Amino acid sequence: MPISGFPEWLPSQRIIEQRVLDRIRSTFELYGFAPLETRAVEPLDILLSKGETSKEVYLLHRLQEEEGAKREDQLGLHFDLTVPFARFVTENHGKLQFPFRRYQIQKVWRGERPQEGRYREFLQADIDVVNRDTLPFHFDTEMPLVIGDVFRSLPIPRATILVNNRKICEGFYRGLGLEDTAQVLRTVDKLDKIGPEKVAAALVETAGATDSQAAQCLRLAEISATDGSFADRVRALGVTDPMLDEGLAELLQVVETANEHAPGLVRAELKIARGLDYYTGTVYETLLEGYERFGSITSGGRYDNLASVGNTRFPGVGISIGVSRLLGLLFGQDALTVSRSVPTCVVVALPSDDRRAECDRIAAALRGRGIPTEVAPTAAKFGKQIQFADRRGIPYVWFPGEPDTVKDIRSGEQVEADAATWQPAPGDLHPNVFAR
Amino acid sequence: MPISGFPEWLPSQRIIEQRVLDRIRSTFELYGFAPLETRAVEPLDILLSKGETSKEVYLLHRLQEEEGAKREDQLGLHFDLTVPFARFVTENHGKLQFPFRRYQIQKVWRGERPQEGRYREFLQADIDVVNRDTLPFHFDTEMPLVIGDVFRSLPIPRATILVNNRKICEGFYRGLGLEDTAQVLRTVDKLDKIGPEKVAAALVETAGATDSQAAQCLRLAEISATDGSFADRVRALGVTDPMLDEGLAELLQVVETANEHAPGLVRAELKIARGLDYYTGTVYETLLEGYERFGSITSGGRYDNLASVGNTRFPGVGISIGVSRLLGLLFGQDALTVSRSVPTCVVVALPSDDRRAECDRIAAALRGRGIPTEVAPTAAKFGKQIQFADRRGIPYVWFPGEPDTVKDIRSGEQVEADAATWQPAPGDLHPNVFAR
Repeated sequence: MPISGFPEWLPSQRIIEQRVLDRIRSTFELYGFAPLETRAVEPLDILLSKGETSKEVYLLHRLQEEEGAKREDQLGLHFDLTVPFARFVTENHGKLQFPFRRYQIQKVWRGERPQEGRYREFLQADIDVVNRDTLPFHFDTEMPLVIGDVFRSLPIPRATILVNNRKICEGFYRGLGLEDTAQVLRTVDKLDKIGPEKVAAALVETAGATDSQAAQCLRLAEISATDGSFADRVRALGVTDPMLDEGLAELLQVVETANEHAPGLVRAELKIARGLDYYTGTVYETLLEGYERFGSITSGGRYDNLASVGNTRFPGVGISIGVSRLLGLLFGQDALTVSRSVPTCVVVALPSDDRRAECDRIAAALRGRGIPTEVAPTAAKFGKQIQFADRRGIPYVWFPGEPDTVKDIRSGEQVEADAATWQPAPGDLHPNVFAR
Repeated sequence: MPISGFPEWLPSQRIIEQRVLDRIRSTFELYGFAPLETRAVEPLDILLSKGETSKEVYLLHRLQEEEGAKREDQLGLHFDLTVPFARFVTENHGKLQFPFRRYQIQKVWRGERPQEGRYREFLQADIDVVNRDTLPFHFDTEMPLVIGDVFRSLPIPRATILVNNRKICEGFYRGLGLEDTAQVLRTVDKLDKIGPEKVAAALVETAGATDSQAAQCLRLAEISATDGSFADRVRALGVTDPMLDEGLAELLQVVETANEHAPGLVRAELKIARGLDYYTGTVYETLLEGYERFGSITSGGRYDNLASVGNTRFPGVGISIGVSRLLGLLFGQDALTVSRSVPTCVVVALPSDDRRAECDRIAAALRGRGIPTEVAPTAAKFGKQIQFADRRGIPYVWFPGEPDTVKDIRSGEQVEADAATWQPAPGDLHPNVFAR
């Protein structure tokens, strides 16, 4: 039986997923990110040290476990890839070259209530850069470029990366005279869920804001622009603070660098905050055209305080693509399709059982030149062999003979062929993935 | 802190692992195996239905779980990929084309005591073919060819696939007059661990054998051959049984098909049995030259009774490569090396901070033509930029100028270059993996 929240794809969907992952990986590698995998489990104290997400942790117990295992020995499944990465860096910093750029594509687990595009087991694809002591800001400007290149390489709708900077919010709230900036941030973060009236009321009630301060917070959150004009609109609100200025300058750099690389890729969106996370400056989200109502398909940002060893800090910036989330949404709308459900490009027809060795040699010759090939499972007539290929979307059937022939079952064209030299059309070698 | 049994590789090792996985995957796909992933968890009753391995299962609990969750709702991490695959087939048989060939490359978990090359979390790469009702025997002969091609594509020592057939053992024991053939099989399976004297004694004690029957069982287990001669040696022992004949004919087919494909790849080894597993005919193991003492790096066989829906059976045959085990052994002997620890082929030197946009454009041009490129993290002198590349094994440093130049830091050769057309030596585009 399917288990709610633990999605499984059929083979044709898995072929699409693999193609998507290949593109993600090759784009990450074009930017010099090195591959990394961390174990699936972390000690519970590592998982709990990051706050509220801990509610969703899956703990592990051995079936035959001795009673009363101590809590510090407890292991849980990781719920993201950033916390394990930070742990890996602190554990291995002596063996790494800094700045350390890594990508990590792995399953993560959360004991959340499942809903469309939200799973308990899901695949994430993360990039991060960490450095020792300080991390230059230009790495914050690079993240959207990588993600933009990934999305442009995929047969999916247009993606817009939303960017904000927590220093803008925090500086603005402080410049307004609000003390508990974290509480203000958490409250404003609920804007899309509960609407402006309730946010204003909550700001007055829980964050000590006056009505006028609450209104200003909402005005800030309304600002959105694909160019540098957001900064003027913030300044027009008349609030000043050094941290606000710093945040505006940083966000401007991100927007301008992105506009040079790919106009329209990035939008400054001053309401996003990623409330419960460990970010300290830039924050990123991504909306997919036509799927905006399902929320963001990436999450990320700058984190200056996630990892440290003694007095040495390892600040970082990163972004995570929710691969299962993205594919779940697209599969749900039947938005992606693939030309076949198997890697096989050629089926070698088996005229009779005593000719299997001959067919195996033909298959070996084709495979030796990189052409995915199967021999038919049983001897059968012409029509059955065609049907075998057709049901799987395999484009070619090979008929051993004197001479051998190969048939493109889509066009019906059949030509003489030699297994030592024949080539399929280049587009037929591997399954093709399309937007539907 | 590292957790015993949960290995993590450094980035350069992960690059090696990825190269190995790419080769495994492309070989599997050349044979037409379709990709599949199953969820990491299975209901406990699915995991427990397969017998003794259940001792090693990791169960999941949510940290905030309500008390008294019912046992049938309990989830555990899968301990292999065959049991989940069998479950997937029974669940989705209406949506699959049979015979169904799939590969699956995933982590599995076992709560075992860790030792060299034995982990609690490890990566397996499996292929299986299942069919509805009956599965032709020739699929049993194909498995070693695929695995042989995989191992020949890797920079590792020579692998020998050991093959046996449980029908030989069971038929032989029965022909000898022994009733509890399963107990005999389990006892003989301990040969390498406890030696022939203790096996003989245990056969007498626990399987009702006479001294002479026990001696015959040991004579069978001694037989080993890289050609069809094993069959004559078995027959010379003077035991007859129809199932024995069937097993000998099957094993002969496996050995002869393998010898035609790759002489020396396969050895009939009549002592292997894979005692606790669900196999019903052919069984496979693999020894790596120089690493024989660590045991087998693959496991597999024919299973006729693992999956069924109502009266419909789905017999299968498959083999699993212990990827973490293989790499753990090779890394432990420092037997593999890689030319660099990052994907980056070119570092663009940053002459001064105000020229970052120019350097970014050069990097984008190189990436656009598939050349992995980083821009130097900070402006620095010539020597520092070379050092940055050298420490990571990056072969080229690009110097923006009028004109641009690119330096091969290994040879010291520096030439004029245009980012729109320059190509690295083809062998330099990606990291190279070697046997050391």
